[in-house]
Amino acid sequence: MAILERHDTGAIAHLRMNAPERLNALSDAMLEALRSELDRLREDRAIRVVILSGAGKAFCAGHDLKEMQAGRQAEDGGAAYFADLFTRCSAVMRAIRTLPQPVIARPHGIATAAGCQLVASCDMAVAAEGTRFGVNGVNIGLFCSTPMVALSRNIPRKQAFEMLTTGSFIDTARALELGLINRAVPEEVLEAETMALAETVAGKLGSAVRIGKEAFYAQLEMGLDEAYGYTGEVMVRNMLDRDTEEGISAFLEKRPPEWRQ
Amino acid sequence: MAILERHDTGAIAHLRMNAPERLNALSDAMLEALRSELDRLREDRAIRVVILSGAGKAFCAGHDLKEMQAGRQAEDGGAAYFADLFTRCSAVMRAIRTLPQPVIARPHGIATAAGCQLVASCDMAVAAEGTRFGVNGVNIGLFCSTPMVALSRNIPRKQAFEMLTTGSFIDTARALELGLINRAVPEEVLEAETMALAETVAGKLGSAVRIGKEAFYAQLEMGLDEAYGYTGEVMVRNMLDRDTEEGISAFLEKRPPEWRQ
Amino acid sequence: MAILERHDTGAIAHLRMNAPERLNALSDAMLEALRSELDRLREDRAIRVVILSGAGKAFCAGHDLKEMQAGRQAEDGGAAYFADLFTRCSAVMRAIRTLPQPVIARPHGIATAAGCQLVASCDMAVAAEGTRFGVNGVNIGLFCSTPMVALSRNIPRKQAFEMLTTGSFIDTARALELGLINRAVPEEVLEAETMALAETVAGKLGSAVRIGKEAFYAQLEMGLDEAYGYTGEVMVRNMLDRDTEEGISAFLEKRPPEWRQ
Repeated sequence: MAILERHDTGAIAHLRMNAPERLNALSDAMLEALRSELDRLREDRAIRVVILSGAGKAFCAGHDLKEMQAGRQAEDGGAAYFADLFTRCSAVMRAIRTLPQPVIARPHGIATAAGCQLVASCDMAVAAEGTRFGVNGVNIGLFCSTPMVALSRNIPRKQAFEMLTTGSFIDTARALELGLINRAVPEEVLEAETMALAETVAGKLGSAVRIGKEAFYAQLEMGLDEAYGYTGEVMVRNMLDRDTEEGISAFLEKRPPEWRQ
Repeated sequence: MAILERHDTGAIAHLRMNAPERLNALSDAMLEALRSELDRLREDRAIRVVILSGAGKAFCAGHDLKEMQAGRQAEDGGAAYFADLFTRCSAVMRAIRTLPQPVIARPHGIATAAGCQLVASCDMAVAAEGTRFGVNGVNIGLFCSTPMVALSRNIPRKQAFEMLTTGSFIDTARALELGLINRAVPEEVLEAETMALAETVAGKLGSAVRIGKEAFYAQLEMGLDEAYGYTGEVMVRNMLDRDTEEGISAFLEKRPPEWRQ
Repeated sequence: MAILERHDTGAIAHLRMNAPERLNALSDAMLEALRSELDRLREDRAIRVVILSGAGKAFCAGHDLKEMQAGRQAEDGGAAYFADLFTRCSAVMRAIRTLPQPVIARPHGIATAAGCQLVASCDMAVAAEGTRFGVNGVNIGLFCSTPMVALSRNIPRKQAFEMLTTGSFIDTARALELGLINRAVPEEVLEAETMALAETVAGKLGSAVRIGKEAFYAQLEMGLDEAYGYTGEVMVRNMLDRDTEEGISAFLEKRPPEWRQ
């Protein structure tokens, strides 16, 4: 059994973290599997949307603490290993964002620490009712500093600060209110509802979605004037796409578009 | 009939987009009318608040797609025309923000694509219950890249991403929750409620509101220390205004202020 | 009676603004008392959390307007005094953020103008039900330009703009929805509920909380890549803390940690 399973349904790739006995911890092996699968997906033009889920009773409970403690055996007390570990972990989180295809997290059970960061790093999230979210590293003396990068770009700051310094969990109703997830649904329809969302996005013109996802995050880090200059150029490129020309024509002629993609 | 009607009620200017047969599309003519009217308002010291609405059954349905497709006839396939179009459109959106007077959007019916961007670009918005908001260009292969600049500065990012990649609409209750609008009211009281808000703002000291609106958006793009340095200077200027001196004195003496403005 | 009272309960410092007859206005004396007490707390390793409250019927009603008007007697009409005043006031707001220990605001009654800014500047806030929040300087011709720096980093922008230009108040239910406060509780349990939150945070590893608070605000002002580079280094430092090693070991061994701090 692979630590990360992939199966595709049409244009939708399903990635399932598969180390249920460790609550899908982001061990060295899991991080490497995620990195290499995201690299493959990046070049896979047949895939338009990715769904990320976890096997067993939890989505993901964060780093593999046993592995981390073992890293302390090195001569430098683990300094080099930890630096490398957080670099690799952050690279996976950023790979989700820079992946051309939208990624939907499908959390259930618990999503804590770097597992909560995974949810926050995905473009959208559909959660099973009853899922608990937390950045609870502070409870063991390890503040969730890298997870907060993603979390604090999803939810308001006083609420992020509370989660980070109290280590307390929030439920799906609160996660919805705060903006951490897009939907909360009963577990029995979790797969169907996530698929419905994925298929909606997969049904759009792929080149438009790719251009849009990249531009979405790029413009968020710009001032207003720069953002408009940049996205104006993006729209020109989008307009010059033959499939976009067909999409607009079809709309004006009240017929379905015939896209080549 | 002008494509953009203006009538003033005291210190409040009402701009009404008036191309109901095209759902008030942001055609070249509409963009030019908005630009020139905003330029006039910028110098009009008698006007303290602007309300932007649309005639007919929709607030605004975005760009004029027929006009855009016609632009493809040029030798360059429309590249120069599209670049100019998005520059002009973004200039209107930024003109709303840089206008000294607050601008209140008053959407009803539908506000989609660049029409939703107009709502997001205004300083405040009062919507008729039943209004539907969307950035649905993705449905025809044209990702709403410039609209998302305004939208993603109004609502949380996962919810913005969903709207942009699914093309789905949100209703006024959801728009309120997400922060896209300030109020949703029954259509029969839409005009009265918007006027009440406009009159409240118009009743304040005009110089203070002008200084405040400019500073509001400027400081949002700064780091905390720079923002405090800048707004501290703004407050000193505000304090040295004779009318502000009178406003504070009147408050301390429990009498209404006698402002010269 | 000191204008700012402090008493400590274990690792929790209680600061109480004590000028109830002036609604705890941020006079020169109050600002100086806050500044010097925050300076003392900064070096006080016995204190892990600070609670800020106000004596009397209001938390804080903003600047001392009588004192400000008196400042106009100077030859320059007050320009130098006002510049110095806003610099000192902003320094207090920033001192709350740069304090190593988390600061919890505990507003009741009213929190207006710079008083609302105090709430927004604290890391968390627990409010008494019935508290009213406003940035109402615009009502007397003095736009709340420095308060908006903090407010607009707590709540969505259209809602902040409305508060700033209408001068209207929001209640605790709305403050909760918008993210300005973490909790609203009946006044009779305000002290107990705030203490419970403070004790939860005080019970965490102090070095982890300190490292986390500093990193939280620093990374918020960075782009994503820079933020991950920076927080990765923070986590390495955190991992190399002997107490964190013990915290993780204790967790893995299912026993309480024995921290030296």
